[in-house]
Amino acid sequence: MTKIVIIGGVAGGASAAARARRLSEDAEILMLERGEFVSFANCGLPYHIGGDITQREALLLQTPHSFKARFNVEVRVFSEVTSIDRQQKRLTVKNVLTGEEYQESYDKLLLSPGAAPIRPPLPGIDSPNVFGLRNIPDMDRIMAAMTINKPQHVTVVGGGFIGLEMVEALHQKGIAVTLLELSNQVMAPVDPEMANFVHQVLVQHKTDLRLNTGLTAIAERSVDPSEPEATGDYAIHAENSNHLELTLNNGEKLATGMVILAIGVKPETMLASAAGLELGPRGGIKVDDAMRTSDPDIYAVGDAVETPDFVTGQPALIPLAGPANRQGRIAADNMLGRDERYQRTQGTAICKVFEFAIASTGHSEKSLKRLGLPYEKVYVHPGNHAGYYPGAFPVSLKLIFDPQSGQILGGQAFGKEGVDKRIDVLAVAMRAGLKVQDLEHLELTYAPPFGSARDVINQAGMVATNIIKGDERVCHTADILNMTADQFLLDVRNPGELTNIGAISGACNIPVDQLRSRLNELPKDKEILITCQVGLRGHVAYRLLANNGFKARNLSGGFKTFQMTTKQF
Amino acid sequence: MTKIVIIGGVAGGASAAARARRLSEDAEILMLERGEFVSFANCGLPYHIGGDITQREALLLQTPHSFKARFNVEVRVFSEVTSIDRQQKRLTVKNVLTGEEYQESYDKLLLSPGAAPIRPPLPGIDSPNVFGLRNIPDMDRIMAAMTINKPQHVTVVGGGFIGLEMVEALHQKGIAVTLLELSNQVMAPVDPEMANFVHQVLVQHKTDLRLNTGLTAIAERSVDPSEPEATGDYAIHAENSNHLELTLNNGEKLATGMVILAIGVKPETMLASAAGLELGPRGGIKVDDAMRTSDPDIYAVGDAVETPDFVTGQPALIPLAGPANRQGRIAADNMLGRDERYQRTQGTAICKVFEFAIASTGHSEKSLKRLGLPYEKVYVHPGNHAGYYPGAFPVSLKLIFDPQSGQILGGQAFGKEGVDKRIDVLAVAMRAGLKVQDLEHLELTYAPPFGSARDVINQAGMVATNIIKGDERVCHTADILNMTADQFLLDVRNPGELTNIGAISGACNIPVDQLRSRLNELPKDKEILITCQVGLRGHVAYRLLANNGFKARNLSGGFKTFQMTTKQF
Repeated sequence: MTKIVIIGGVAGGASAAARARRLSEDAEILMLERGEFVSFANCGLPYHIGGDITQREALLLQTPHSFKARFNVEVRVFSEVTSIDRQQKRLTVKNVLTGEEYQESYDKLLLSPGAAPIRPPLPGIDSPNVFGLRNIPDMDRIMAAMTINKPQHVTVVGGGFIGLEMVEALHQKGIAVTLLELSNQVMAPVDPEMANFVHQVLVQHKTDLRLNTGLTAIAERSVDPSEPEATGDYAIHAENSNHLELTLNNGEKLATGMVILAIGVKPETMLASAAGLELGPRGGIKVDDAMRTSDPDIYAVGDAVETPDFVTGQPALIPLAGPANRQGRIAADNMLGRDERYQRTQGTAICKVFEFAIASTGHSEKSLKRLGLPYEKVYVHPGNHAGYYPGAFPVSLKLIFDPQSGQILGGQAFGKEGVDKRIDVLAVAMRAGLKVQDLEHLELTYAPPFGSARDVINQAGMVATNIIKGDERVCHTADILNMTADQFLLDVRNPGELTNIGAISGACNIPVDQLRSRLNELPKDKEILITCQVGLRGHVAYRLLANNGFKARNLSGGFKTFQMTTKQF
Repeated sequence: MTKIVIIGGVAGGASAAARARRLSEDAEILMLERGEFVSFANCGLPYHIGGDITQREALLLQTPHSFKARFNVEVRVFSEVTSIDRQQKRLTVKNVLTGEEYQESYDKLLLSPGAAPIRPPLPGIDSPNVFGLRNIPDMDRIMAAMTINKPQHVTVVGGGFIGLEMVEALHQKGIAVTLLELSNQVMAPVDPEMANFVHQVLVQHKTDLRLNTGLTAIAERSVDPSEPEATGDYAIHAENSNHLELTLNNGEKLATGMVILAIGVKPETMLASAAGLELGPRGGIKVDDAMRTSDPDIYAVGDAVETPDFVTGQPALIPLAGPANRQGRIAADNMLGRDERYQRTQGTAICKVFEFAIASTGHSEKSLKRLGLPYEKVYVHPGNHAGYYPGAFPVSLKLIFDPQSGQILGGQAFGKEGVDKRIDVLAVAMRAGLKVQDLEHLELTYAPPFGSARDVINQAGMVATNIIKGDERVCHTADILNMTADQFLLDVRNPGELTNIGAISGACNIPVDQLRSRLNELPKDKEILITCQVGLRGHVAYRLLANNGFKARNLSGGFKTFQMTTKQF
């Protein structure tokens, strides 16, 4: 009889426990969880704060009781493992309520400790009005503070998933929000021009978005605690609910009622590291593709481990729920003598931002640049479904690929409906080893309410394939911004579009439908950089010019991409 | 200079014209269209009738003028090609307005004639109140009849895409609808138990659904034409607006105001056939994978041609917009000397049915049965997104696969949101040659509003993989209905579910969470057929029983699938 001990009862740990029992009735399975809750919906926390999820209980997916009843898994909450004796295969467990410590043996051990929110050592960081959001008690604390202090303004620090979800949650509660982001963009997995779509949405929803801005200190303010009902002056209350004064890295001061720290997470490796388990270069627990650590009887899964990047194979820290669940299942298989392998992480992710969504899979342009890998990129902005069917809205998609082989390196998308679908299709294509040349052949569901006969993905594939086959040469915003005297900028939109939407200064305007009869207005000795609104008419113009002996390039994604790339927030 | 003539200016023909021009400025491109319109949104017609698409002009995607301006393509509407002289490479063209005929030469000819609605030779079929819906004039006629005759009841014949879309359109207009369907199900691409979801939706929306019912005769009724305003009696008007009396194949009579024929389409092959071009076994124009007919200078695309089925490679007629567009592009490439190949048709399709959607890709169970191919199937019914996030609704997915290799043979899904996404993911996986064993590893977008950490597709993949690996033996509704004395039926749901939702008669009920302690109630000498609500608890129970030495099988998709399989409409 194998005794399996699982440290950490969320996502990967919970999956492993259930899977282990399905594989073996004999195994003794013990789950130790430091906190009060196991298997809770950590991804749902911001939505309960914002009010979308009305019932707190909805977040509690499993309980110690349900684990016992269904899976005969013993769950001990409030139970922190303080050390691992690998020689003796024994754990020291501390009951965090009583302080009592005891020993527990294991045959196979699974570490699923997760990752902890980063708390930088800033002056004032320990103020009671500074919160992280990792678990149910964190959520409860935030909601209690919102109820008691009635903050009129909250500052969210960090524009990742949790940061963005908290901005929306607070907005739904009628609370003004400042979002501080140290880098030049929110949503680190996407590139800045794609993040700019999100910046725009945030600003439209009255978020006080401050990019390139860090928090350097937090101080308490003395405020008049009187209720607005007492004075009738709600402006005073708004001001008075700002219990904190923040100092920013640009020297500015900001009065705020609460701070939500959402800077990111770091893997919980203290226990593993103290036990002498190998860590990887990114600071996570090192595991092989069986999810086995450097100790053959100890496995680790989830946000605490490094897994190989799908494209490069290099160790990466990618804290996502889907991979954690899969890893848990695979670890259970291997702990019980099967041979299952984890198949790398692409980093497929999505975030709802008000009525919009931003999603990505694979590598971003900036990460490929950092790695020095060759890539090309194309942008398309087709409707999520047939334009003539009501409610169509563009899916702005960036497809990144190897310009030689056509290997799909990554994709990013922004829009309303259908963003998840397009990134899922790309993620599957990428995982299956399809190339961009295959994308135009994909046969996807089409009816006017759902897509187009030529879907967003088909279109992106065609554009990329045109480049690989030499049917189109593209240029990008950087080329436009760095034009030389040998180049000539041509805008093939209709004059009204230039006036109403805007245009790149210095462009010669010949609408595409007049181009064939006005070729004599174009210089034969210069390279013509073509722009239209989204790149489609530009492609028609490109082919027309190329077939007439002109040297040309088409701005991928057109003026819309140019605008998003050059816009400052 | 190549002279390309394209017969038919919608979908495939229009795509080919635009592509041909992008490839060559020199080619002379002439498009001949029998009707008044080219490149119109034929998939949008029902939605204009129903009022979703308010502007008729929105359906006119291109005009002869716009083709000329942008692509230098000459378009002649009202121009019917009456014969092809392949020796001389000349066409006889008839101006259908004037009757005038003339000759036109070609170097390369593309046939894109489409498919015509089937009009069975029934008595009364030529009544002015019997309509097909293929093009703009058909739509105009239907809308005019609705405006003038104010029908209170309309009969739709045929429950395919157009039939279902017309039911919804008429419902939106407040018109009562009878839907006649000769077979035992609507939506032929899916299997009956999946179609039952649609039947349920139709009945919930007050459609008078009559399965296994055909139309045998149409007769005019004499009705009082007086307006209800004159008499104040609207019931009389309702009755009086029923200008037709239908005779059904069960002998029943049905009074109705209009008939919409949506029985299906047959490829328009008269011209090709008269010119001696080879037809295929299914009655469509035979083409190779370059979209070339038996005449090397004549190509054909779209609903009129046979293409190889993705799984079997056998010729198939699959009239879909996406494939037509891709074929047009490929034909243009090949006509102009390139070498591009069409990569088979999976038959990926979707239909909106009120707030629901039904979609499929690849083969159905019934088509595999017909072909005598081995298959296994699994059903899952997980939420389209995290259950704790508001608005979750099940995606009921049927995955069909080769039980030996795991090759994906087909998929079908019904639900509200996210049906298109799941079938798209399956379609890509199938096209890429992924097996069901790969589906659990797919890394799809996850955040609570969009999916689950273990997506519908991951789950379906796990269930199928369990079968292939021998981790689960499944049974289906047919097995339950044909139980032998050696079998024992076990329902592991909670008693309240059996009472409130219903149960299979004769089942022994032991909730899964009590099963471990009540194993003594189960016979060791019988095969235990396990059912739960959707198959998930049944799997836990299956593993528990199997690990305890019982012989068992789990009902795939649980009682929900059983219900949909046995339900009669």
